[in-house]
Amino acid sequence: MSGRLDINAERARLLQRDAEWALAASEGRDLERILSFWTDDAVVLPPALPAIVGKAALRKYVESSLQIPGFRITWSSHEAVFSPDGQFAYLLGNNVVTMNGPDGVPVTAKGRAVTVWRRGADGEWRCAVDIWNAEPSA
Amino acid sequence: MSGRLDINAERARLLQRDAEWALAASEGRDLERILSFWTDDAVVLPPALPAIVGKAALRKYVESSLQIPGFRITWSSHEAVFSPDGQFAYLLGNNVVTMNGPDGVPVTAKGRAVTVWRRGADGEWRCAVDIWNAEPSA
Repeated sequence: MSGRLDINAERARLLQRDAEWALAASEGRDLERILSFWTDDAVVLPPALPAIVGKAALRKYVESSLQIPGFRITWSSHEAVFSPDGQFAYLLGNNVVTMNGPDGVPVTAKGRAVTVWRRGADGEWRCAVDIWNAEPSA
Repeated sequence: MSGRLDINAERARLLQRDAEWALAASEGRDLERILSFWTDDAVVLPPALPAIVGKAALRKYVESSLQIPGFRITWSSHEAVFSPDGQFAYLLGNNVVTMNGPDGVPVTAKGRAVTVWRRGADGEWRCAVDIWNAEPSA
């Protein structure tokens, strides 16, 4: 049994961790905590913006996002699929990004997200790839 | 050694398979071959369009795409990362979609794509998640 993972327990743990990350990001206060959920080599692909690769670039990206007037992001994931060894997983989810428009009125964009997570040598899950795009307009 | 994969060989094999898929898709002639590269439960998330889930919905999606005047898609992937057991992988790549605009002039959209692949019981790689979004405008 040694080294064998209980995938159902791991799924609950990963979805809980993702929810904690979404909460930290939506609160927008603790930069280091927000950054700690990504791998050092993580790739983030926001729609129509350049790819952000690695922790240093991500720090700048999150810092500048948090300075946008009215900025808030949150998300929730509804599906988690694991590699047989329980070391990789992908999550499907939805996100909501709000920021003030040119006239100061908040504008909200809804998206669908895919994140890929890797389990580190310390057993902790971290996000290695983060991409989203727009939901269909209603 | 039994069951142990050579990740470098598997990377070459997966990138080759992805390239064969891109070629089949860009030729746009063999619907069943194009569909054969997805898992039966694959999720495709095109920007601003509803999610397409499963083989039956994908068949309709590809059929209708191939009927769009001037439609052509192609892509190439530049990075492949594998789970330790070699049963999951994600690819990062770029795609190009062309179709005729309202005036009949071809319009091209460039995107960045993430695909997640699973190795089936038959040893073959199939794409389970397929999402892309727009590159930054030049």
